[in-house]
Amino acid sequence: MVREISRPGPGDLKLLGEYGVATVHEAQGRTGLMASYMRPIYRPANLFGSAITVLVPPGDNWMLHVAIEVCRPGDVLVVATSSPCEDGYFGDLLATSAMARGCRGLVIDAGVRDVRDLTQMGFPVWSKAVFAQGTVKATPGSVNVPIVCAGAAILPGDVIIADDDGVCVVPRARAADVLEKARAREANEESKRVRLAAGELGLDIYDMRAKLEQMGLRYE
Amino acid sequence: MVREISRPGPGDLKLLGEYGVATVHEAQGRTGLMASYMRPIYRPANLFGSAITVLVPPGDNWMLHVAIEVCRPGDVLVVATSSPCEDGYFGDLLATSAMARGCRGLVIDAGVRDVRDLTQMGFPVWSKAVFAQGTVKATPGSVNVPIVCAGAAILPGDVIIADDDGVCVVPRARAADVLEKARAREANEESKRVRLAAGELGLDIYDMRAKLEQMGLRYE
Amino acid sequence: MVREISRPGPGDLKLLGEYGVATVHEAQGRTGLMASYMRPIYRPANLFGSAITVLVPPGDNWMLHVAIEVCRPGDVLVVATSSPCEDGYFGDLLATSAMARGCRGLVIDAGVRDVRDLTQMGFPVWSKAVFAQGTVKATPGSVNVPIVCAGAAILPGDVIIADDDGVCVVPRARAADVLEKARAREANEESKRVRLAAGELGLDIYDMRAKLEQMGLRYE
Amino acid sequence: MVREISRPGPGDLKLLGEYGVATVHEAQGRTGLMASYMRPIYRPANLFGSAITVLVPPGDNWMLHVAIEVCRPGDVLVVATSSPCEDGYFGDLLATSAMARGCRGLVIDAGVRDVRDLTQMGFPVWSKAVFAQGTVKATPGSVNVPIVCAGAAILPGDVIIADDDGVCVVPRARAADVLEKARAREANEESKRVRLAAGELGLDIYDMRAKLEQMGLRYE
Amino acid sequence: MVREISRPGPGDLKLLGEYGVATVHEAQGRTGLMASYMRPIYRPANLFGSAITVLVPPGDNWMLHVAIEVCRPGDVLVVATSSPCEDGYFGDLLATSAMARGCRGLVIDAGVRDVRDLTQMGFPVWSKAVFAQGTVKATPGSVNVPIVCAGAAILPGDVIIADDDGVCVVPRARAADVLEKARAREANEESKRVRLAAGELGLDIYDMRAKLEQMGLRYE
Amino acid sequence: MVREISRPGPGDLKLLGEYGVATVHEAQGRTGLMASYMRPIYRPANLFGSAITVLVPPGDNWMLHVAIEVCRPGDVLVVATSSPCEDGYFGDLLATSAMARGCRGLVIDAGVRDVRDLTQMGFPVWSKAVFAQGTVKATPGSVNVPIVCAGAAILPGDVIIADDDGVCVVPRARAADVLEKARAREANEESKRVRLAAGELGLDIYDMRAKLEQMGLRYE
Repeated sequence: MVREISRPGPGDLKLLGEYGVATVHEAQGRTGLMASYMRPIYRPANLFGSAITVLVPPGDNWMLHVAIEVCRPGDVLVVATSSPCEDGYFGDLLATSAMARGCRGLVIDAGVRDVRDLTQMGFPVWSKAVFAQGTVKATPGSVNVPIVCAGAAILPGDVIIADDDGVCVVPRARAADVLEKARAREANEESKRVRLAAGELGLDIYDMRAKLEQMGLRYE
Repeated sequence: MVREISRPGPGDLKLLGEYGVATVHEAQGRTGLMASYMRPIYRPANLFGSAITVLVPPGDNWMLHVAIEVCRPGDVLVVATSSPCEDGYFGDLLATSAMARGCRGLVIDAGVRDVRDLTQMGFPVWSKAVFAQGTVKATPGSVNVPIVCAGAAILPGDVIIADDDGVCVVPRARAADVLEKARAREANEESKRVRLAAGELGLDIYDMRAKLEQMGLRYE
Repeated sequence: MVREISRPGPGDLKLLGEYGVATVHEAQGRTGLMASYMRPIYRPANLFGSAITVLVPPGDNWMLHVAIEVCRPGDVLVVATSSPCEDGYFGDLLATSAMARGCRGLVIDAGVRDVRDLTQMGFPVWSKAVFAQGTVKATPGSVNVPIVCAGAAILPGDVIIADDDGVCVVPRARAADVLEKARAREANEESKRVRLAAGELGLDIYDMRAKLEQMGLRYE
Repeated sequence: MVREISRPGPGDLKLLGEYGVATVHEAQGRTGLMASYMRPIYRPANLFGSAITVLVPPGDNWMLHVAIEVCRPGDVLVVATSSPCEDGYFGDLLATSAMARGCRGLVIDAGVRDVRDLTQMGFPVWSKAVFAQGTVKATPGSVNVPIVCAGAAILPGDVIIADDDGVCVVPRARAADVLEKARAREANEESKRVRLAAGELGLDIYDMRAKLEQMGLRYE
Repeated sequence: MVREISRPGPGDLKLLGEYGVATVHEAQGRTGLMASYMRPIYRPANLFGSAITVLVPPGDNWMLHVAIEVCRPGDVLVVATSSPCEDGYFGDLLATSAMARGCRGLVIDAGVRDVRDLTQMGFPVWSKAVFAQGTVKATPGSVNVPIVCAGAAILPGDVIIADDDGVCVVPRARAADVLEKARAREANEESKRVRLAAGELGLDIYDMRAKLEQMGLRYE
Repeated sequence: MVREISRPGPGDLKLLGEYGVATVHEAQGRTGLMASYMRPIYRPANLFGSAITVLVPPGDNWMLHVAIEVCRPGDVLVVATSSPCEDGYFGDLLATSAMARGCRGLVIDAGVRDVRDLTQMGFPVWSKAVFAQGTVKATPGSVNVPIVCAGAAILPGDVIIADDDGVCVVPRARAADVLEKARAREANEESKRVRLAAGELGLDIYDMRAKLEQMGLRYE
């Protein structure tokens, strides 16, 4: 259990949060994406914040109570299990507690329950499963240690961006750089969007015809 | 095919139906839950009723017609296959027939189709898949025999509770006892919810600090 | 890359499009259905059109730009990968381009991203996954060749019918015949629906009792 | 924890054990089979015995130590988890202990480890996974209660038959009846085998041609 | 049911059979491969032959008896299901019958049983599952029609090549051409193998360094 | 591409290699284990070495050629993909090249082919799939960067231990400490093994009875 962690500046966080997961993932060189099985419990949903990392044993949600104590406004709980598990670690009571501490949402490589309540509370969750299966409080885990969640490596204080496309992690130290690249990418996309909407072809906009011919594409 | 089965009292049923799956599952000692792949075809959805159990061959929905004959108002069709299958056993015609007999919904460890119609009809279904694949009517199965559906053992007349979190089975004989425990649990949760919403920590409410320290949790 | 393909007559297309996937699949003898993992990104959704087939390498969406050039109003992009892949091949820019060419929707045995944008644009997609993972443009594939998509064999110009139940392919040459059978089936179902809604049993309407008894069904 | 259970007679057990899973499963009307994901850790392998049932929490193998105490020669440990888990609940130490008590093998709807040692010891195991992941000893479960293991309902004292094709459960009360049917089936198959090996066709031996023609099979 | 089909010349077949699946798959431009879940029931195993295609309903193996009648020496049974199914369609009796007709092996996108017997008989099978689950004989299917098996499109008379790496289909008309390319590829690989074994690097043999530098690879 | 990395001392490596994956995983506090889907292509198999990490695009094995150049005797190739892929990245030619450089084996979160050749060569591989599907050489990746492989975070130069139970990663800096703990654990297990083999119960050896009673275990 680590109490004190560094967090990204709130400015960078907020600005990064304005871009979607697909844009941020591209902006940092197609890294940091969690597996496609991580789905939001309701849609549309989006989330950005600073990661509180939690490592829990299978079927045991004790450490979530421990983690909530160190949540500050703007934090996101990111939970990995020490072995694969789909149990419902988190429900409306924990969400009530987390929201009271300013926690913005949950990303969990396991299951969640009380999803109707969580939806009504507007507490966004990305999870591997929705499952009413209860958990015990018998074995401690860790809070604010490096974890691997749904295939992505995360340190406490990393930036979490999530929307209907999934969840992406931006290392804290790279936040400013990624923000800049996301901004550039979005600007570039906007001009493309207008031309494509007008019927211009990507083949021409991106100047692909010569390259495709050279790679052997033949028209019949 | 068994025509006459015992059913739970309508009073217990209705009262149990007021609690969600997570609460009922906890109240009966974390048993009776179906696998997490059983998902509602629309959300929010909820269902309670007395089980008519059906065992069908793969790709053959003949027995559903047989089962509907014995449905009474308040019943729920619970369908297992004799080997894993995702075919669309059930669609709008069977739903029309089932509703006409007072059947409240369907729980099927297989596929379902016509989901848009079923949604418009307000006929709730929990299934393993949505799949248009048709079935034949060539081989009989069984109605109102003990079955295993999505990992849960069910007898005809058991209580089925389903919502957005999944499906739970309460043995008929335990319905009154589980009801009482669910009531106690809910009451207890309500007081906790108020304290958690006020920012009090689960660590303190549940008095976990000493136990965690004893289990070796260290703060850094 | 094949530029010129035959397409079904727009009349047949439109009429077939009025029937759902379950009906069309039955009408053509329970063939042509894609696997149940092909799900719409929003619901309700429906689609009909003439297939532009695309075969792409894993993690490479170059050919989608090539395919869009040959789209005509009423076409549907149908994309298979040369090996299984869940990457997000298609997002809002490609959708903008496809819509500008009259393309009606996308069926892809892989992933898609920007699903919130696609939902707002009303561009329907059936896919194996929602995944923000980006793709490269390095290796050509094929357009308008025979493909296998989610277990179904498809030729360019085949009819695609999709709704909340999944995706079905009707070979172009069979479109008129299937249309007729779908019409007959629907008419027949309508009369059954009325009788079932009135509480008559399928056992009686379909005259099943004797056959079931002969097959050994016993009542207890 | 139930100490005293009824077991099948050793004679029936031994005789049933001479038939394979496919034969026994057919002989009892195609019921009692566990899911196809239950695989032996080495092949060829076979096993028959009387079930000691164990229900364990995810990631917690404490109850296996409890269960071994009540094992008698000829017993088989049959382990289900209260929620899905692939952890390695069982390794060479537990196998050493189980063998010392006369236990013949393990059927576990979870993971197992030390598979090279278990193979060398000749201790057969059917499991959902091979996984080195360790477990804790923190939460009790149950021994000799009714369980559902890999989709099959089992009571303590039921007969377990396992081979390279999978695992089948025969209710204790039906053992003698199933034995008789397995014997009849095997005898019948033997005569068929000789005729098929001589080149005679199943179409003729089973007299299928007329029935197939009547069902609409046409030759082209 | 189609009795008469064209088969590849036995010479081409035999020669193609000398190359493994990986080589043949490459030689025909990386097409024709079945999904990776198709695994041999024993290893090492290999198979080549001319396809008899069979389409069967879920849980119904009637058509296998029909198909065996048209098997000639050198044929391979290739079985697809009309919807996904893992049942054990094929066991030692059918294998006895198939071997008596000269059938060389089985490729089935479903389950198989009696695998120990099949192994002892030396009858190779590639399947999606090993599962003792029995099937009925109630609904006809088709023999020698175009099918999609494990993601690959197959016509009767196509060449089937299978080994420990999986299963590949070569269209009959392309057999001679693919054979030639496989031969060239193998010759080329042999010289590379010698150089690689001597410690030369692929980077140098394939002259990759300049291209990698141009693509942006940097050494640190 | 990073050329120079630190490696563990050969002494520690060799000694750690004498313990199995289950023991090493326990010795380092149940961390570092790859997912259970990582299976050896032949059994028995075991491997220890220093990791050369490789990150590859889906369907593109170019970087494997780059990685082999930096292999030294005692190294193990550990390959992750930038998005999930089962293609056969590695076959007998790459194995020939890797062995010539002293590489001891391969751990790949993707597919492998030519498994019969690899088995005959005695080159051990742990992979997610066996799949003949070919790959291209079009897009660079990275060598000797931090990766996540099958759920485990790995740095270049970390220790890889693999056997029939799976694959475990020991951070280079912890190798000596884990070695000591593995030794202690093994010694402790040996004495337990003797007592268990003599029929003593784990309940008594580990002194569990009082604790179980206190946790509520009741005997009936």
